[in-house]
Amino acid sequence: MHTQVAIIGAGPAGLLLSQLLQGAGIDCVVLERHDRAYVESRIRAGILEQITVDLLARVGVDARMRREGLPHDGFNLAVDGSTFRIDMTGLTAGSKVMVYGQTEVTHDLIEACLERNTPLVFEAQDVALHDIESDRPFVTFTKDGQARRLDCDFIAGCDGFHGVSRRSIPEERLAAFERVYPFGWLGILADVPPCGEELTYSNHERGFALASMRSPTRSRYYVQCGLDERLEDWPDERIWDELATRLGPEAASHMTRGPSIEKSIAPLRSFVCETMRHGRLFLAGDAAHIVPPTGAKGLNLAASDVAILSDALIRWYGEGEACGLDGYARRALARVWKAERFSWWFTGLTHRFPDMDSFARKMQLAELDYIRGSRAAQTTLAENYVGLPLA
Amino acid sequence: MHTQVAIIGAGPAGLLLSQLLQGAGIDCVVLERHDRAYVESRIRAGILEQITVDLLARVGVDARMRREGLPHDGFNLAVDGSTFRIDMTGLTAGSKVMVYGQTEVTHDLIEACLERNTPLVFEAQDVALHDIESDRPFVTFTKDGQARRLDCDFIAGCDGFHGVSRRSIPEERLAAFERVYPFGWLGILADVPPCGEELTYSNHERGFALASMRSPTRSRYYVQCGLDERLEDWPDERIWDELATRLGPEAASHMTRGPSIEKSIAPLRSFVCETMRHGRLFLAGDAAHIVPPTGAKGLNLAASDVAILSDALIRWYGEGEACGLDGYARRALARVWKAERFSWWFTGLTHRFPDMDSFARKMQLAELDYIRGSRAAQTTLAENYVGLPLA
Repeated sequence: MHTQVAIIGAGPAGLLLSQLLQGAGIDCVVLERHDRAYVESRIRAGILEQITVDLLARVGVDARMRREGLPHDGFNLAVDGSTFRIDMTGLTAGSKVMVYGQTEVTHDLIEACLERNTPLVFEAQDVALHDIESDRPFVTFTKDGQARRLDCDFIAGCDGFHGVSRRSIPEERLAAFERVYPFGWLGILADVPPCGEELTYSNHERGFALASMRSPTRSRYYVQCGLDERLEDWPDERIWDELATRLGPEAASHMTRGPSIEKSIAPLRSFVCETMRHGRLFLAGDAAHIVPPTGAKGLNLAASDVAILSDALIRWYGEGEACGLDGYARRALARVWKAERFSWWFTGLTHRFPDMDSFARKMQLAELDYIRGSRAAQTTLAENYVGLPLA
Repeated sequence: MHTQVAIIGAGPAGLLLSQLLQGAGIDCVVLERHDRAYVESRIRAGILEQITVDLLARVGVDARMRREGLPHDGFNLAVDGSTFRIDMTGLTAGSKVMVYGQTEVTHDLIEACLERNTPLVFEAQDVALHDIESDRPFVTFTKDGQARRLDCDFIAGCDGFHGVSRRSIPEERLAAFERVYPFGWLGILADVPPCGEELTYSNHERGFALASMRSPTRSRYYVQCGLDERLEDWPDERIWDELATRLGPEAASHMTRGPSIEKSIAPLRSFVCETMRHGRLFLAGDAAHIVPPTGAKGLNLAASDVAILSDALIRWYGEGEACGLDGYARRALARVWKAERFSWWFTGLTHRFPDMDSFARKMQLAELDYIRGSRAAQTTLAENYVGLPLA
């Protein structure tokens, strides 16, 4: 088998890249370790920046999102139960975000791949990257028990934090920057109407909570929990009680309780790998960087990475220009670091840290009080939330 | 002796309060432990917010400041030698700060006290506060070996972090919030022209540096240093060399070296005491709170405290209204906490922390990069620097 770009991983980064390339007449093959059902069932983020919405429109995979997604103009911050609103759209001259689950994005992109005959290989086992420092890299894998080889010009490593791509770069060529947070997010998905039309991020004495949604009939809530806590310790009623306390009386009075259809505990991590390119291998999305979910930047960074990477590949194939590829890591990382900064800051502003002293708590409250009263401070929050421009 | 308000401490807080009260026809006596020469020689801050400038104008102690002070419209941030400017005045609809040393402010206020016969007792030893929970508090002290007693209606504790006032409040009535930073500022004062017209705050791999000034012919520079370092380790030439490295080539090329006329190492501390009032005792300035010098908020908080306190006392004596006095701590602390937050944040953004990992360093660089590119982020810096409004 031969293709121009081998894409490792059929998450949003790999799938979106495949459609951006195919739209420009560049051949690609997407290799995915899991089966389709697994890929489509992973519950992840649900907030799309304008840049991500625009990219989905560019590849013509936005019809259902336009129909079912919920455009949001603002969100709320709650401090020990008292709430104020960040008017995103008013503060950023018109930007919005779109509430539309990553699960849905993935589903829509897979549908598009299948309709458009994008080569998409599920259950590709034992993927290995070869000769990435040469002009003729190739990928080997096993499919249905058979060893296969895919020759290509470039490899796009879109296979997430635990994927093979980043590990294929010699260790001495990589610098890793990491922060592991001393808490997790316990998430609950339930088919009940959300407690409000917009999201509410809450900093409460007892810890962070987030009221979010996937649709007008499906709610997604989170509470900060300890890393040693187990799902068994959190029957649904305990989660609803905790949410009611942390989100405050206003949100609690509008909260509809119901049985969870999904429940999970996720750790929080900041991670950046520099560089994002080695030879003919280009990393994109979670393969190169992880953000804590506060601020919903993960999926959007994956989208902006592949926007930059597809532009570079299109220039290379169209005009023989290598400068886009050479500048990929620098350009992508400039945006990545700012989103990492925002996610780290927003996490620090809203969570209860186990080793926090009373001064640190006062700093959170003073910053939230400052944000409440300052249009400039609200604007920094809004402009980061809707997404900084592609530099 | 009897007076209406006994003011403990003849620093800028106590002196300014005396003039605000005297201007409103309220009697006061200022007691100061040290002699005049000592008080006037303490080298401290040098940046006045508009609020502070306005207060000095209100008490008619602004003639020399108008003549000799340097109004500043902006300042610079340097990141590993590359500099950008924060246009304070443009970003805040016209606000400025005034470069005019605290030493000069203190001198001018003492002159005014003497001209206007404000009772001002230097070398008042063994000051002790009595019956502050009653309606008839009094202060005892020793002057020229003689025991004295000053009866009063109220006591204003303006005697700094180490003064007797805060310690006169029962411990169980106070909550202290504190952060001690793992570094100090080595300051050098020299009669040489400053390296630029505006201040430059520098975050350098080797640590923080600040290029400041007191006048067109007197420079004030600082370099971050370890807490265990001694002045003997820092001959002038070493300081100039370090400044040249940390401030970057542009500043270094305009830096005039010269012999130090003052040199000192100061620790950095954040501290807030809640409450700021107990019975008839009201704390103001450093007696109640300390900020690290980054952002120059210390003197300005002292000024806004006494502005709020004098308003409250004027209402009490004029209209018999106690609500100003009852709201003093809450109103002063709302501003104090925001300034504490800003000073803590600006310190964290610009200094090298001994335990900083590579991720934390990247967060500093990403935030500085974000500020460089965001008008909203620059506005938050500018509006805090010129001073948030009196709430």
